[in-house]
Amino acid sequence: MRQAGRYLPEYRQVRAQAGGFLDLCFTPELATEVTLQPLRRFGMDAAILFSDILVVPFGLGMGVAFEEGEGPKLDRLDAPDALPRLDLERFKATLEPVYEAVARIADRLPAETALIGFAGAPWTVATYMIEGGSSRDFARTKSWAYGDPEGFGRLIGLLIDATVEHLSAQIRAGAEVVQLFDSWAGVLAETQFARWSIAPIRAIAEALRRQHPAIPIIAFPRGAGANYLAFAEQAGVDGLGLDTAVPLDWAARALQPTVVLQGNLDPQLAVIGGAPMLIEAERILQGWAKGPLIFNLGHGVVPETPPESIGALSQYLRDFRRG
Amino acid sequence: MRQAGRYLPEYRQVRAQAGGFLDLCFTPELATEVTLQPLRRFGMDAAILFSDILVVPFGLGMGVAFEEGEGPKLDRLDAPDALPRLDLERFKATLEPVYEAVARIADRLPAETALIGFAGAPWTVATYMIEGGSSRDFARTKSWAYGDPEGFGRLIGLLIDATVEHLSAQIRAGAEVVQLFDSWAGVLAETQFARWSIAPIRAIAEALRRQHPAIPIIAFPRGAGANYLAFAEQAGVDGLGLDTAVPLDWAARALQPTVVLQGNLDPQLAVIGGAPMLIEAERILQGWAKGPLIFNLGHGVVPETPPESIGALSQYLRDFRRG
Repeated sequence: MRQAGRYLPEYRQVRAQAGGFLDLCFTPELATEVTLQPLRRFGMDAAILFSDILVVPFGLGMGVAFEEGEGPKLDRLDAPDALPRLDLERFKATLEPVYEAVARIADRLPAETALIGFAGAPWTVATYMIEGGSSRDFARTKSWAYGDPEGFGRLIGLLIDATVEHLSAQIRAGAEVVQLFDSWAGVLAETQFARWSIAPIRAIAEALRRQHPAIPIIAFPRGAGANYLAFAEQAGVDGLGLDTAVPLDWAARALQPTVVLQGNLDPQLAVIGGAPMLIEAERILQGWAKGPLIFNLGHGVVPETPPESIGALSQYLRDFRRG
Repeated sequence: MRQAGRYLPEYRQVRAQAGGFLDLCFTPELATEVTLQPLRRFGMDAAILFSDILVVPFGLGMGVAFEEGEGPKLDRLDAPDALPRLDLERFKATLEPVYEAVARIADRLPAETALIGFAGAPWTVATYMIEGGSSRDFARTKSWAYGDPEGFGRLIGLLIDATVEHLSAQIRAGAEVVQLFDSWAGVLAETQFARWSIAPIRAIAEALRRQHPAIPIIAFPRGAGANYLAFAEQAGVDGLGLDTAVPLDWAARALQPTVVLQGNLDPQLAVIGGAPMLIEAERILQGWAKGPLIFNLGHGVVPETPPESIGALSQYLRDFRRG
C-alpha cells in the first residue's frame, strides 16, 4: 500500500514545491525523493513507487486533474465508440518520467530492499474514466457494464493492453514486483466480479509472465469479501492484498494455500498507535504464521497518522522476525 | 430493504407536502401512506415500515437533521462521559408516532402480507452519532472504539437498550418481523466486527426473543464479506441480509444451513431492468433454491429506478413461484 504521503513532514515540503500532484508523479527527481522518504525513516523491506493509478488514462490522452482537498477529476467517457486509442509511442513518451523515476529509485535502494511497481486494475480505472472521478454507486459504469458488456469489454481490453505496457516498462526500468490495485472490486456482484475483476487481472498476469517470468505479481481486489476465494484460485497472481475486513483464520485456511497473503492492519490503528496497534499486528503475524505473508496495512497510510506509529510498528516487525 | 422512495412519483408528491424528511417519518398518516405505496403497485409479500435508523438518536434527545440532497447531520458526541441517557418515558413519547404508523399499516395490510419493522444496529447508529453524519473513514468512531473500548462499550450498551425498546414497541404495534441494519459493519476488522457488530446484535436478538419468541429477526451486516460466516453462526438471528458482493454458491454452502438468506440483486440492475435484471434474478433464485430465501435487492431501491422495473421484477418472481 501507499507508504509515502501527507503524514510525513518531508513529503509535505516536497509536495508544496511541486505544483500539482501530477507534477510530483511526473518529475522523476521528486517522485524518487518521496518514494525513498519512508524508507529512510523506517527501513521497510520493500519500497513502492510513488505514483497514481490515473497516470494510465492520462497516458491515453484523457484530461486528469487533482484539486487540493478533492478527489481526482477526469474527462468523462460517454460511450464505447468514444474510447481513446492506445497510441503506444505517445503513451510511452507521456509516461517516460514514471519509468525514469523507477530507474532512479532502483539505483538508490539497497540491494536487499525490493522495489514494487504498480498500476490500477482495469475495472477500477474504468470507473474513474466513466464516472469522471470517484463515485458512491458507480451508476454510470454499472449501467454500461450490465447494459453493453461488449462495448464495456472493449474499454477493459484497452486498459488491459495499456496496463501490461505500463507494468512491463516499470519492470524493465527496475521494478522487482508489481501490484495491481482493484480498489473498487468490492462493489461488483459475483458474475461481474469474475468478468471485470478476475478475468482482466488474469489476462494482465499472463501477458506479464510471458515477458517477465520471474517477477511476482500481487493484486488487491479491495472489498472482495468471500469473492477473494475465487480470485485467489483464478486470477493467476502470486500475492493477494487483503483489506482490513478479511478474517484471519478464513484467509489462512481458504487463501494462503494458494497465494502469499498481504495485509491487513486497519490504517486507523496506525493513527492510534501504541498497544492496540501492536496487539493487532501480532494477531496478524500469528494468524498467518503457517504460510507466506507480507505484513502490511489493509489500505494506505492516512494523513492523520503520527510518523512515530509507523516507526514503532516497523521496529516491532523487525523484532518479531528476529524472534 | 427500502421499498418506498423517490423512484415513485406518488412518494415524491407526499414528500413535497410533508415539510422535512423527519416530518414524514413522524406523521403516522404520511408514513403509513408511503409504506403502502409500493405494495399497491407491486404487491410484494412483505411491507417494510417507512422510517429511518436515526429516529433512535433523535428519541435519545440528539439533534438530527436531513438537508435536501445531503446526508443526515447530527449533534456530534464528543466523549463517553457526554452520552445521552435513555429516559424511557421521553424516548417512547418521542417515537410514539412511529408506533402509531406501524399500527395503522398493520391494520391496512392484507392478512397474507407481512409487516417488517426495523432499526439501525448499534455500531452503525454509533458511527452517525460520533461522526455527526456519514463518513468515509470512520476515524473518530474507530479512534474511540480502539482507544477506549470500555467507554465506547457504554455507548453501544445504551444503543442496545434503546434498540430493544424501539423494536419491541414496533412488535407490540403490529410488526411481524424485525430487521437490524448494520450498514457500516463492513469497515470493521475481524475482532472489532465480533465485538461491535455481532455481539450487540446478539444481545438485541436475545432480549427480543425473551419478550416476543415468535418474531423472526433479520440482520443486514452490509459488507461483512467472509465475516458473514461468523455472523451467521454467532449473532443468533433467523435471517441474514446479503449485499450484492456475496457470491451465491458460497452463501448457499456456508450460510444457508444456519439462516434464511435475503438478497442480493444489484440495485443498479433494477435501474437497467429488462433481461440483464431478470437473468440475475433467476441466478439468485436457482443459486439459493435448496434452502430458505427471501428475494430482495442487495441494498435499497435507488431514486433513478424506473417503477416499471420493479413491476417487471415482482411479476417475474410471482411467475417463478407458481412454477
